[in-house]
Amino acid sequence: MVDLNELGRRAKRAAQDLATTPTEHKNAALNAIADALEDAQEAILAANQADVEDGREAGLSDAMIDRLTLTEARMGGIAADTRRVANLPDPVGEEFDAYTLPNGLRVRKRRTPLGVLGVIYESRPNVTVDVSALALKSGNAAILRGGSETLRSNMALIEAIRAGLDAAGLPADAVIYIDDTDRAHVLSLLRLHRYVDMIIPRGGAGLHAFCRENATIPVITGGIGVCHLFVDDSANLASAVDVIQNAKVQRPTVCNALDTALIHEAVAEAFLPQVVGRLREDGVTFRADPRALDVLNGSPGVEAAGPNDWDTEWLSLVLGLKVVDGLDEAIAHIQAHSTGHSDGILTRDEAHADRFVDVIDSAAVYVNASTRFTDGGQFGLGAEVAISTQKLHARGPMALKELTTYKWIAVGEGHVRE
Amino acid sequence: MVDLNELGRRAKRAAQDLATTPTEHKNAALNAIADALEDAQEAILAANQADVEDGREAGLSDAMIDRLTLTEARMGGIAADTRRVANLPDPVGEEFDAYTLPNGLRVRKRRTPLGVLGVIYESRPNVTVDVSALALKSGNAAILRGGSETLRSNMALIEAIRAGLDAAGLPADAVIYIDDTDRAHVLSLLRLHRYVDMIIPRGGAGLHAFCRENATIPVITGGIGVCHLFVDDSANLASAVDVIQNAKVQRPTVCNALDTALIHEAVAEAFLPQVVGRLREDGVTFRADPRALDVLNGSPGVEAAGPNDWDTEWLSLVLGLKVVDGLDEAIAHIQAHSTGHSDGILTRDEAHADRFVDVIDSAAVYVNASTRFTDGGQFGLGAEVAISTQKLHARGPMALKELTTYKWIAVGEGHVRE
Repeated sequence: MVDLNELGRRAKRAAQDLATTPTEHKNAALNAIADALEDAQEAILAANQADVEDGREAGLSDAMIDRLTLTEARMGGIAADTRRVANLPDPVGEEFDAYTLPNGLRVRKRRTPLGVLGVIYESRPNVTVDVSALALKSGNAAILRGGSETLRSNMALIEAIRAGLDAAGLPADAVIYIDDTDRAHVLSLLRLHRYVDMIIPRGGAGLHAFCRENATIPVITGGIGVCHLFVDDSANLASAVDVIQNAKVQRPTVCNALDTALIHEAVAEAFLPQVVGRLREDGVTFRADPRALDVLNGSPGVEAAGPNDWDTEWLSLVLGLKVVDGLDEAIAHIQAHSTGHSDGILTRDEAHADRFVDVIDSAAVYVNASTRFTDGGQFGLGAEVAISTQKLHARGPMALKELTTYKWIAVGEGHVRE
Repeated sequence: MVDLNELGRRAKRAAQDLATTPTEHKNAALNAIADALEDAQEAILAANQADVEDGREAGLSDAMIDRLTLTEARMGGIAADTRRVANLPDPVGEEFDAYTLPNGLRVRKRRTPLGVLGVIYESRPNVTVDVSALALKSGNAAILRGGSETLRSNMALIEAIRAGLDAAGLPADAVIYIDDTDRAHVLSLLRLHRYVDMIIPRGGAGLHAFCRENATIPVITGGIGVCHLFVDDSANLASAVDVIQNAKVQRPTVCNALDTALIHEAVAEAFLPQVVGRLREDGVTFRADPRALDVLNGSPGVEAAGPNDWDTEWLSLVLGLKVVDGLDEAIAHIQAHSTGHSDGILTRDEAHADRFVDVIDSAAVYVNASTRFTDGGQFGLGAEVAISTQKLHARGPMALKELTTYKWIAVGEGHVRE
């Protein structure tokens, strides 16, 4: 029987140790974890094989099975990623905003770990290692809860992670896994505000909503993107086709993939047949508004958009097409339908680009680029723990620095308040 | 009948306008609000008089009545504070973390308003103006919900605020007040995540817990301080008495006032009689652990500490006294009992100061200074909307900058992801 309060206490104690663990020691532990994962590879793959077989019997989709499956190559990648986190800069301990008050009190801020992270995720077992490594590097403990379909894989991975921590002389409780699949424990974790400082859900819209509804701890919601690109009348149309193709096709199943292209009416006749012709070759089908339908006029793979299509995150090879009068209507559409993830304008008009960037309130706003760049790796952060579409704490790709907070330090010489 | 969804929609629309309103225009509106408050002073004081009379009849304590009462002088202060906010720097629009990726994509972050703030508060009507001014300056709309005992005062203040906004040509819905005292509306506000980006409770521990339990929106919890000072064996004892007196006595009813003094055993015999002798003159009584009791030996005003006393935020002239073996025990006590608000060490030993600062995980950590400095005004922020003791987004005093988030802006030339 899992006692979440007891797990919370243990994680908190480990977090207190990690908060003052030097960078070199944390890096040594990350390398020890990579070693331990390699040493335990056979056992991990066997556990994963059992999960995969059960998953097949339970009728999981091929896509789910693929996400669940570990191979020697994938295990090599996981160990390499863990060593790579050891090479990233440590955000903890950085001091900033230092100043001396008129009374002589010296004030500064110091970056510190958040404490204990609660991570709730689905299927992919690599998340277990990924999140553990990022939490450790940033000085945080983590309580993990993966999907029941990956329990054996996760338990085997966790055993190696904790062995690595132990080998490096750090508390194994820096990473705790809730190994009881009773869903009540998810609820308990969401309400463990006495010990847990941040909840990170990694999964679909349903998981995010469940966390937001039930947590008494701040939740980083995100990962849901109804993303737009607006093709302005001054856009380079050849480039615009390339960008829209990339944003829709390069990896359609992810949150920063394009969902709706808005086309300025002045270029609709020239542009729509081009973009439809090109993307159809990639297997894309289209949901068009009446004006776009008129232009495309019976083109195969194009159907009329339904009332909910503008609010749908497709996660597949479907693209919404809508003709707009111009920048204002494009902005109004995005304000009404964007989930605040990634939205962009394709234009050669600088004033239009500026206005779009000023007014569109999304985590990432693009000018003449694909929405697919909203990603910790692409933005050069070296890692990614989540993409936030809420506004507190961090927005867009979150990496090591976003797993920290700060404390105020004030040093006086017997200073008292007047 | 108040429709929270409708209020949310209106606030959100106003927030979209405010997000791109130039600083000068926001400042003009703040000055217009100050003018409107002065123009309406008679009506506001009359409304307040009615609230005060009802409060007296309802048996509110003198302290509550005092907090509720507006006078000509207080109204002058409120208008002056509003004009002062106009003179603070505007955090919105600041750009930072700019860099160019190897592929040439130019990335930067821009500071933007959060959007819509939900503020739930008790008694003091000046909060109505204070929060409205800070929200407006930082480009946010606000939905306010004050205590029912101040409804008429708040309605009169809000009328002036909205008149000021209107006179300045900004949407009056930048500040919306929930004028129905049905408590169900508080719950609805806490669940209005579609429109509200941050909840700020201003009140006691009960209000904070209620918000945390029920909100689906991130809540800035804070304002609860069980604060400690540790008198090390190397402390300047004369200075330590001054600092402890200041931290306890200067304003005992607030969250950054001292609750427990921890005394190194090596100086307990010298120090305890001094501190008790001095603070007794201010009317302080003491709750002492057995070792401190031994030293103080029947001293008037000193009684044995009960089991919950170390976890009590006194908010009054009571001070806990505990003798500890040294730094480690002091740290352990603080880790067990601190609410993470403000804790400090009084020492001349630099290594002890460093260790204390490293290990104590509170919003503000002090060396040789009173805990009473944890305050936006004292720390030079020019304002304060709350003191956060949670770790996400902002910690300690929160002012204008802490009412903002950021967006990523990426500018390319037809950039696509490989």
